[in-house]
Amino acid sequence: MAKEKKMVEAITSMGEDFAKWYTDVVKKSELVDYSSVRGCMVIKPYGYRIWELIQQELDGRFKATGHENVYMPMFIPESLLQKEKDHVEGFAPEVAWVTHGGNEKLQERLCVRPTSETLFCEFYSKDIESYRDLPRLYNQWCSVVRWEKTTRPFLRSLEFLWQEGHTAHATAEEAQEETIKMLNVYAEFCENVLAIPMIKGRKTDKEKFAGANATYTIESLMHDGKGLQSGTTHNFGDGFAKAFGIQYTDENNQLQYVHQTSWGMSTRLIGGLIMVHGDDNGLVLPPKVAPIQVALIPIMQRKEGVLEKAREVEQILAKDYRVKLDESNKSPGWKFSEYEMKGVPVRVELGPKDIENNQAVIVRRDNREKMFVALDSLSEEIGKVLEDVQKSMFEKAKTHRDTHTYTATTMDEMRKILEENPGFIKAMWCEDEACEVQIKEETGATSRCMPFEQEHISDTCVCCGKPANTMVYWGKAY
Amino acid sequence: MAKEKKMVEAITSMGEDFAKWYTDVVKKSELVDYSSVRGCMVIKPYGYRIWELIQQELDGRFKATGHENVYMPMFIPESLLQKEKDHVEGFAPEVAWVTHGGNEKLQERLCVRPTSETLFCEFYSKDIESYRDLPRLYNQWCSVVRWEKTTRPFLRSLEFLWQEGHTAHATAEEAQEETIKMLNVYAEFCENVLAIPMIKGRKTDKEKFAGANATYTIESLMHDGKGLQSGTTHNFGDGFAKAFGIQYTDENNQLQYVHQTSWGMSTRLIGGLIMVHGDDNGLVLPPKVAPIQVALIPIMQRKEGVLEKAREVEQILAKDYRVKLDESNKSPGWKFSEYEMKGVPVRVELGPKDIENNQAVIVRRDNREKMFVALDSLSEEIGKVLEDVQKSMFEKAKTHRDTHTYTATTMDEMRKILEENPGFIKAMWCEDEACEVQIKEETGATSRCMPFEQEHISDTCVCCGKPANTMVYWGKAY
Repeated sequence: MAKEKKMVEAITSMGEDFAKWYTDVVKKSELVDYSSVRGCMVIKPYGYRIWELIQQELDGRFKATGHENVYMPMFIPESLLQKEKDHVEGFAPEVAWVTHGGNEKLQERLCVRPTSETLFCEFYSKDIESYRDLPRLYNQWCSVVRWEKTTRPFLRSLEFLWQEGHTAHATAEEAQEETIKMLNVYAEFCENVLAIPMIKGRKTDKEKFAGANATYTIESLMHDGKGLQSGTTHNFGDGFAKAFGIQYTDENNQLQYVHQTSWGMSTRLIGGLIMVHGDDNGLVLPPKVAPIQVALIPIMQRKEGVLEKAREVEQILAKDYRVKLDESNKSPGWKFSEYEMKGVPVRVELGPKDIENNQAVIVRRDNREKMFVALDSLSEEIGKVLEDVQKSMFEKAKTHRDTHTYTATTMDEMRKILEENPGFIKAMWCEDEACEVQIKEETGATSRCMPFEQEHISDTCVCCGKPANTMVYWGKAY
Repeated sequence: MAKEKKMVEAITSMGEDFAKWYTDVVKKSELVDYSSVRGCMVIKPYGYRIWELIQQELDGRFKATGHENVYMPMFIPESLLQKEKDHVEGFAPEVAWVTHGGNEKLQERLCVRPTSETLFCEFYSKDIESYRDLPRLYNQWCSVVRWEKTTRPFLRSLEFLWQEGHTAHATAEEAQEETIKMLNVYAEFCENVLAIPMIKGRKTDKEKFAGANATYTIESLMHDGKGLQSGTTHNFGDGFAKAFGIQYTDENNQLQYVHQTSWGMSTRLIGGLIMVHGDDNGLVLPPKVAPIQVALIPIMQRKEGVLEKAREVEQILAKDYRVKLDESNKSPGWKFSEYEMKGVPVRVELGPKDIENNQAVIVRRDNREKMFVALDSLSEEIGKVLEDVQKSMFEKAKTHRDTHTYTATTMDEMRKILEENPGFIKAMWCEDEACEVQIKEETGATSRCMPFEQEHISDTCVCCGKPANTMVYWGKAY
């Protein structure tokens, strides 16, 4: 192993420096590269393919739940951004402003969309007339820009790719139903496709989206014990509708305001994949979003018959899997490390002796288990292995999260956990924002969510000691 | 028919005012809406679905020819845009400039990408080292911004969606091969999927892309006799490579410059679809990119058994086609006009008498042909009809183009054709740019391309009368 590892450039170990491990992995596994624009990344083919697979899975779920894709302009006139008071306060400090078109100064500045509520609202205000036009269930895939000070590939960048759902409903109940439905779609996708377990809950008022009545979130725990907000859904009530005048005529011919939601997931998920599943040898990708599911490595490939047989096997496997046969002149050991770095779930080795015995060697990326498999049943066996890898990765991530989820009843306990062995901390909260602020100041932890599955940890707020009925997940977060 | 037509809002007839007909159609068929940002459009679900179907078809062809998708930043620093002299001259006057991030003035202006050659070049200059890294065959799907003065939905807008391929090769020959290969991919796609016949050729120096050695184009003829540049591919030679220092070590360990290409197609194609196939009743969509291929209209739907049967038929058809059963309370006549407006290739009518006779009525959108078909073979028959519609639409468009393609040997002839019955004009050109300019000034026609299939129309230039060996397609264009 030691020899093999030297063949590809070594990466910093997780234990030594998690942040450096992360940037090493995104770079060495060829997911992204930096560009000359501060905080903007180049998403390379291997990284973009993961995003395409994520898109396919999500888009199918959106369409199955009746949503349609649309495309809104990337620019928002300053006056439009200002229509909803909370929203503009939240976003104006972090937008990019276009002031000139060609050589001409614009009469009104345009911002590059940081999110598109205002554009959808303007559109809905013209497009919706009657109850027959409702619900409107729209989504768009696009890139957005937020002028962040500190940036990290996938996790926080000036520009990122995402989808944003924007819906309008006749009643408050329907809007609330949509908000929860899409949160469940997100969680199901993350757990079944990305193999990342999620906590579902509601954000505190302090952490909710600018302009929302309520924000719901799915939260996951990274390998280093920090949380990652992985997707959010927002119920706007009729706040935006009133600011933008989005009204419809109901069945009794009365004018009513619509009730709206929005929800988004982004390339940030790829950061989550890396930090939940990765190890000291690089990426570990769940089969469902792995650009290469099977790396086929010929052994002693110059020996007569080896490459021919390998190509034959490739043809068969390609019917069912995303397979790559690596015929390059690099050594098998180099190739092993290379595809480990790239997180390919299954490696198949095929050498002269294997061919003689009509078999191949399968090696799993997640637990390095090695199996000898008859060539005739190779495809079938790989199917079983991939399914098991997908399941095991979820279980492993869940075990990690569960063993790194603690309870605390005092600030001292919280501090101690966060210093010694960080993770999620379940603790009671009195619902006073002052306590939330104080907890952040003293421990660095923020409220991740008020989970739907509440527990009674203690009778009193972890911070002020007053009576408390709400359990909150706390944690440091990306 | 007259009564039906009144049920949906009437559109201006093509003959009366083609430009108004176009904007009526894009609006009434619910492809786009206007936004509060000048020249930026909202692409509505029906329009965006066409784009998704175009994307699927094109993306499959790109991947089959070995290309990989990536994503570059949407911003280009001013200094980077300026690196290639011709390129910056061509694009700088029409870009949007970002000067502020949040409240802070940027040290260097960023433009919103009008096209991404400079970003790909910067990336390639770091990413390519050896001949083993070549070719690089990348593509990206994104939106770009060009600060146009006059805009029209799909045809010319401030922001539009497109794909841009960017490739780097070891030799000039390989780059040229790629340039032609992708032009052929574009033409095949347009003819077989969009049912639009194309002329393939090279652009004159005056009309080529800013920074290219040679630009190739596919040109189509719209219903009003104007041309539409539908896709272009560019061979950059090593011009960009020299400006950006993109070098590789060849097999003899010598430093060499790469040779590059780029190629793009955009939402403009949807404009082409409208103007080639549409008629006075609205859109006519080729089955391969029709969001709804079959509109199923129940007749006397309140009669017992009609809706039940219609739903049953829908289930069966949905296995093979994009089908929509319209159960709304609108009259059948209203629905007929509605789906005609939306260009749905096939309408199926199903009423109590049809059910009694175990049959349905099929009506083609393209030629209004009506057929009675046994329900048991309905799906099969629709398959045949859709195939025939796809083919007939291409043939019809080709006949229109061919009958509107003329030859001219004098300026008077050119002027007369363009005034009386516009279309493509084949005429000889001496290759002097002065003549090209003069033709445009006097007739309004531009050189569309120097077609690969050359003909000898006359011995002399249509403009100056000097000897000429090159035949050019001329025409007014969008």
